[in-house]
Amino acid sequence: MPFNVLMTFSLPADFIAELESRYRLLGPLERMEPSALPPGSDAVRAMITKGGLPIDATLLDALPALELIVCYGTGFDRIDLDAAAERRVRVTNAGDANASSVAEYATGLMLAGVRGIVAAHDYVRGERWQGNGFSALPLSPGLVGRRLGIYGLGEIGRRVASRAQAMEMEIGYCGRAPHADVAYRYLPSLEALAEWCDVLMVTVRAGAYNRHAVNREVMAALGSEGYLVNVSRGYVVDETALIEVLEQGILGGAALDVFEHEPKVPEALKRSPRMLLSPHIAPLTHQAQGAQRQRALDNLAALDAGEPLSCLVR
Amino acid sequence: MPFNVLMTFSLPADFIAELESRYRLLGPLERMEPSALPPGSDAVRAMITKGGLPIDATLLDALPALELIVCYGTGFDRIDLDAAAERRVRVTNAGDANASSVAEYATGLMLAGVRGIVAAHDYVRGERWQGNGFSALPLSPGLVGRRLGIYGLGEIGRRVASRAQAMEMEIGYCGRAPHADVAYRYLPSLEALAEWCDVLMVTVRAGAYNRHAVNREVMAALGSEGYLVNVSRGYVVDETALIEVLEQGILGGAALDVFEHEPKVPEALKRSPRMLLSPHIAPLTHQAQGAQRQRALDNLAALDAGEPLSCLVR
Repeated sequence: MPFNVLMTFSLPADFIAELESRYRLLGPLERMEPSALPPGSDAVRAMITKGGLPIDATLLDALPALELIVCYGTGFDRIDLDAAAERRVRVTNAGDANASSVAEYATGLMLAGVRGIVAAHDYVRGERWQGNGFSALPLSPGLVGRRLGIYGLGEIGRRVASRAQAMEMEIGYCGRAPHADVAYRYLPSLEALAEWCDVLMVTVRAGAYNRHAVNREVMAALGSEGYLVNVSRGYVVDETALIEVLEQGILGGAALDVFEHEPKVPEALKRSPRMLLSPHIAPLTHQAQGAQRQRALDNLAALDAGEPLSCLVR
Repeated sequence: MPFNVLMTFSLPADFIAELESRYRLLGPLERMEPSALPPGSDAVRAMITKGGLPIDATLLDALPALELIVCYGTGFDRIDLDAAAERRVRVTNAGDANASSVAEYATGLMLAGVRGIVAAHDYVRGERWQGNGFSALPLSPGLVGRRLGIYGLGEIGRRVASRAQAMEMEIGYCGRAPHADVAYRYLPSLEALAEWCDVLMVTVRAGAYNRHAVNREVMAALGSEGYLVNVSRGYVVDETALIEVLEQGILGGAALDVFEHEPKVPEALKRSPRMLLSPHIAPLTHQAQGAQRQRALDNLAALDAGEPLSCLVR
């Protein structure tokens, strides 16, 4: 039975068409506030959103028929789960649907960043490649034999670890507690991990608790030969501190797919030759997007049929 | 005992200093011809060169005291091994000293190329990232679940294979004959491999026999969703045909670390948005260069001491 579904942000056109063939689709919203809700919102039974957009009690109260919040991606960090539970609104995410895609991209950022692939491309294009000797590009430390520190060994972090192990790296991690099923080295804190490793990979589940967890001290511990990669949430890294340590040469370099105030990226990061920049595209492969769509559609259908939902986030 | 060593090309300054502390170092050469040889060449016992520079009988005859040709890298394709053998000149290379570094870089080119990392970086820098929806960048096919075809399963190809397997790719290869010690799929020809795979990785040992082996037919078999990576020698790929299939959309894209006429790169390749370009830097890591230097120094010392050489190429 078609019911009202609200999308909070612009989904791809072909997915919108698929949703419209099954449901009465409302949205997207210009702001995450009751005043931005379109007509028909009082009958919305399900919402498709992403975890980086805020959903609080006020917004939930303006959606009295809401039963389900489907997070299209992995994140659910800005959704007030307590407020949702109090109103008997269930919350699902994409589970591990995009974990391989994100891990693949994170590995690509690490390789491209540490091996200087963007600089190499610009070097050839810019007519600077001359003569018969070694190129004027600096030697890279490479990844072979070096240490990868993974902050957050979840579905994504584990897939980065297996990739990096095949690349002859040594793996360490930190998190709430050691995992019994892996042989990687456990470090007791993020700072200890940064001190130990050469490349720090941020794949942690983000939330208010780890805002700016990658601070100046952590980046200084990573050091002038160290490299930082973030595919989690922008706010896990203190961008102001990052700009400083890059300018001062305290940190070797960084690759970010996520930023504190997307799509705004500080000018100093855009200008820095030590930065590799990317517009939050780690999950954007056909495989991952297909799997994410299917999980969303399955949960909408399950809601309609009164069947169990998958990938409940709590 | 210090003896005369000729370097044919410009080695890094610190390696030159190390060689000069032990030997009487001559070179580099402006051309690979007898007329370009410096004074003292008649007493040269060993030469440090790279396999892409031609060494023929005429040059060897102008070096009557030559006993050893040390190829600094892996290649020895333009050295006339028969002419060397006839003159009792032995030839060594770096063996697998840089294999991991090259495989790592090849993997990086594949990831950066297929996932569009250079375009992503330019997109953010160019102020094009706007709004709250999906980026305007196209979805990538990614690598998960896709097929990697390796042309030449040697020391480098095997290391690419293990990396790609960790990235959830299916592996196939072609070469002179199947390898009994691997479980990867063997394809009977390069064209069959290109037909089967999504990404074609060229890690083959190059020589006159496989000049332009990656021709128009192979690239057409790879197809409009296919991707080509070359870290072997530029001339294994027919660059004229590559330009055509890229312009016509017959081939999806390509990443090249090597070119037919280095450091010259055709303008059409530099302009193509389907190309990732790199100035022959796959082996340029501290680890690989350190290992290559050590192999070269060890063989020079072994020559002096009359001890067995390592990494003889025949």
